[in-house]
Amino acid sequence: MNEGKVVGTQPAPFKPLGDQGSGFRLSRYLPFLEWLLNYQRANLSGDLIAGVIVAVMLVPQSMAYALLAGLPAQSGLYISIVPLVIYGLLGTSRTLAVGPAAMVSLLVATGISQIGPQSLAETILVAITLALLTGLIQLGMGLFRLGFMVNFLSHPVLSGFVSAAGIVIAASQLKHILGIDIPRSEHFYEQIVYAVEHISQINFVALAISVGSIGILLYFRSGLGALLHRIGLAEGVIVPLTKTGPLVVVVLGTLLVWGFGLRDSAGISIVGTVPAGLPPLTMPSFDLADWSAMLPVALTIALVGYMESISIAKSLASKRRQKIDPDQELVALGTANIGAAFTGGYPIAGGLSRSVVNFTAGANTGLASIITAALIGLTLLVLTPLFFYLPNAVLAAIILVAVTKLFDFETPRHAWQYNKADAISLGATFAAVLLVGIETGILVGAGAALALYLWRTSRPHVAIIGRIGETEHFRNVLRHETTTDPRVLMVRIDESLYFPNAQYLEDVLLSAVADNPAVDHLVLVCSAVNYIDTSALEVLRGLLHELRDAGVTFHLAEVKGPVMDRLEQVGFLDEFGRDHIYLSAHQAMQTLSAAPGQ
Amino acid sequence: MNEGKVVGTQPAPFKPLGDQGSGFRLSRYLPFLEWLLNYQRANLSGDLIAGVIVAVMLVPQSMAYALLAGLPAQSGLYISIVPLVIYGLLGTSRTLAVGPAAMVSLLVATGISQIGPQSLAETILVAITLALLTGLIQLGMGLFRLGFMVNFLSHPVLSGFVSAAGIVIAASQLKHILGIDIPRSEHFYEQIVYAVEHISQINFVALAISVGSIGILLYFRSGLGALLHRIGLAEGVIVPLTKTGPLVVVVLGTLLVWGFGLRDSAGISIVGTVPAGLPPLTMPSFDLADWSAMLPVALTIALVGYMESISIAKSLASKRRQKIDPDQELVALGTANIGAAFTGGYPIAGGLSRSVVNFTAGANTGLASIITAALIGLTLLVLTPLFFYLPNAVLAAIILVAVTKLFDFETPRHAWQYNKADAISLGATFAAVLLVGIETGILVGAGAALALYLWRTSRPHVAIIGRIGETEHFRNVLRHETTTDPRVLMVRIDESLYFPNAQYLEDVLLSAVADNPAVDHLVLVCSAVNYIDTSALEVLRGLLHELRDAGVTFHLAEVKGPVMDRLEQVGFLDEFGRDHIYLSAHQAMQTLSAAPGQ
Repeated sequence: MNEGKVVGTQPAPFKPLGDQGSGFRLSRYLPFLEWLLNYQRANLSGDLIAGVIVAVMLVPQSMAYALLAGLPAQSGLYISIVPLVIYGLLGTSRTLAVGPAAMVSLLVATGISQIGPQSLAETILVAITLALLTGLIQLGMGLFRLGFMVNFLSHPVLSGFVSAAGIVIAASQLKHILGIDIPRSEHFYEQIVYAVEHISQINFVALAISVGSIGILLYFRSGLGALLHRIGLAEGVIVPLTKTGPLVVVVLGTLLVWGFGLRDSAGISIVGTVPAGLPPLTMPSFDLADWSAMLPVALTIALVGYMESISIAKSLASKRRQKIDPDQELVALGTANIGAAFTGGYPIAGGLSRSVVNFTAGANTGLASIITAALIGLTLLVLTPLFFYLPNAVLAAIILVAVTKLFDFETPRHAWQYNKADAISLGATFAAVLLVGIETGILVGAGAALALYLWRTSRPHVAIIGRIGETEHFRNVLRHETTTDPRVLMVRIDESLYFPNAQYLEDVLLSAVADNPAVDHLVLVCSAVNYIDTSALEVLRGLLHELRDAGVTFHLAEVKGPVMDRLEQVGFLDEFGRDHIYLSAHQAMQTLSAAPGQ
Repeated sequence: MNEGKVVGTQPAPFKPLGDQGSGFRLSRYLPFLEWLLNYQRANLSGDLIAGVIVAVMLVPQSMAYALLAGLPAQSGLYISIVPLVIYGLLGTSRTLAVGPAAMVSLLVATGISQIGPQSLAETILVAITLALLTGLIQLGMGLFRLGFMVNFLSHPVLSGFVSAAGIVIAASQLKHILGIDIPRSEHFYEQIVYAVEHISQINFVALAISVGSIGILLYFRSGLGALLHRIGLAEGVIVPLTKTGPLVVVVLGTLLVWGFGLRDSAGISIVGTVPAGLPPLTMPSFDLADWSAMLPVALTIALVGYMESISIAKSLASKRRQKIDPDQELVALGTANIGAAFTGGYPIAGGLSRSVVNFTAGANTGLASIITAALIGLTLLVLTPLFFYLPNAVLAAIILVAVTKLFDFETPRHAWQYNKADAISLGATFAAVLLVGIETGILVGAGAALALYLWRTSRPHVAIIGRIGETEHFRNVLRHETTTDPRVLMVRIDESLYFPNAQYLEDVLLSAVADNPAVDHLVLVCSAVNYIDTSALEVLRGLLHELRDAGVTFHLAEVKGPVMDRLEQVGFLDEFGRDHIYLSAHQAMQTLSAAPGQ
């Protein structure tokens, strides 16, 4: 070994895992203190450039996502101000760009159609109340450190959900793409059926605008980068430039509709008046009946929005060896959502493409987010008249191109190859989202994943083991050439003992004893047992008596230290008999095999 | 080692674990074939004696439990005939005595009061429909081999449920014990409040009868055995004799009420006319609206009834080294319940005290159950006039004494000492059953146990490890004096990798790398990993890239054979780099520590 080695003891040469530092640190709860108090002038240019570029992306995106959510265009701009400032101050990610997001916008649309508001004012009330509830749920989960709960949305379930949501989102934009007035409906396929039935009503001008926009957007995404590479531009310039596609189609589309008077001559639907001025102060509903009606959607938004945000934040932070605190992220997102509720918005989340641009363009601190927010504010104050002639077909094209990235063909293929149970939960989620609905779908998927997981843990691997040759090693008799004693049955269980598998353990051991009448001793080898819960302890107690009644002596071997300590604590060792507990399988076999037969 | 040893290989000297024999065996699905075709005359006396004694116990018990369920006395007798014959033929336990049971009767009472039938005929329709649904659920679970699902009712949850149910049952009998006409109510404490408020209406004759009965029953349970022991009777005679208490109080109580005309003179409520004759053929409701209203209760009855039955069956079978097939038990109980549905009954389950008597008195086969059923049939044909003057106070006393055995003070004490999470789920179940209701209560408990379990598995034990002295052993640096290399971070995770802990693993590893900037290599030691699911595989894939971006090389060590095979199958090993996978932690450390620094 080289000199790099350290004879480390306490304190370890490494910072302990999961260490949050000792005592209370204010900067843990107010992460901006960390960057604000040590702000380097060198950071400013990165923050400024990133903030500006993200704002340029955000203007068209936010109006498009508002359209997807079934809200007026300004709602998307409103949630690009206060929530960004709050997240910039409270978030632990330095580069996550929050604001309107595809999946969350779709869920908001679902929530609105469930509640069924009768007017625009009511619709906005639903949206801000959803933002408040989402925020409170996320804030509560963060404060009570319940971030771990999102773990139970497994990767295959999320993959199935996101792919199906992509289809639902695409279907919802058909009316703008085709220029057909498709009524809202509960199921996405009803919209497709309606479109097919009324195919003769297609507005070909709208279709041309959307197809043209889609072409430009796709070129910006895939072709342009290669071209700019050939020109020799730097990576830090290319990535932001390729993201300006939405802005380009917005400008072109607006000019087209305005220049040729397409609104009146071709009946192109446009964004219309976007009220000028900063976000209004709004008051969400505090009616408990409203809250309980919206709770299921709000819960889904809170979990899905958090999952999306945290995975982006983690992947970007790791590139710079920065840390993300999942619970603080919940606090930051929750507070940002509450901010959205009081400023005429709807729920927010982190957006993938904006965050990548923010990162690549050099954002160093939360200041980049705050700069973006300021520019959106400026846009609202000055530029809104320019959006009047912006055709909805362009916004729909932006949405459509964005959701193509949601389809995930890899995970189903991998899951099917790798793990059928995971593939089943993915398929169940996908089908349920499409056929039943977006919210029930994710519940079905999460339930299926959990049930399959519990089914698996309820049948742990259990093996009869025997001695390998004259060694002290014991292995599965079915896989190795082993020596055994027909009076001594040695069984190894490869799982901790807890209630999902406690009954199974009892079944297996009792039938092993019933099947092998020559057995006088049963040794349970606990080398893989990290934990024994109360249910499993009761089963061990029961087995002790049941085996005694059956004329079999029960022994334990290779019980781990911490497990032994717990058993000692409740007096189980005395009850069990200390001389029936062996350090190793080898020791147990030696002792029992030498004992006279019964 | 002595000569007992066998150099076993394939086939192993032991019958393999969980072996059900090869191919289709009819006797697996019709267990009675096994005992009927080989019936020994020697078995007959045991079966006959046990059958008779259980019948003697069952007559008063069945009327008492029917009272508890809110049904006429004959309902209890009806379910002591056909279901017993069916279970005797289809059950894998040779000694389980099924029929009316305390917990199930209480659940039936709950179900009836939820549906709120308006007449006796409607009440009976609810009861038989519950039996049908319970039977279909159990049969379905058995056929689809879903018996494992009951594992998720953990021991502490069941303990809390049973103790609380005991209190609810006791409260429901107050009206008979005190002779006060207490109206049905949703919550048990309302009955107690009512009793206290109307304490002046106590019927002291009824109270005297019940207190006297309780005294006799308690003496039979605890004092009589010692007396009979002193007389020198055999154990096989004593146990059955001590169980005749209910019969004795029934006879005494009936004689008292009849002899002194207490029904008219003291207003003692009596059983009244029990219609003579075998059970009628009845037709449960097939109305889907009824079914969906009763489904939650039926599901609870199916699970609780099965849990009670299987635990009794397993504990008795193990004493004689007999095997229980949990899925076939579901089929047998389910079919027995369907039998109850068509013969004017209500749901059945295994009864503890009757089964113990059946076992002790020498039941050898299902024939004992069939003999019991025949005797109950005879009772219904001939003896029903004798029950006319049987006071309800005596039946209430029988119930009350039976439920005192339900209180479980041990488990809460143990759980509190041993495992706070288990104690919390026990307490939550207990409180929820008492305060909210019996059905919601068990749901709350099961949910709490599941949530706590998932919380635990979502944070597996993860340790930084180092080399012990100059050995090849690696241990937790915080617990042992170890040697480490600051450039090589070795982390061991003590759990399989699946979706509940996949995100946590990513968090821990990424923050370990962020915390220790000197680290160039991260080695994940997988000695405790039995399984990697799709979510965890995605996290490993993500980590590979994230660590590379952070300038850290990712390695794996001690990956188990089966896990390695799966990873190979999806091409992960090539993606990961085969030269970054080491057989042992030792090998990894040797290789990486010798490599030149970056």
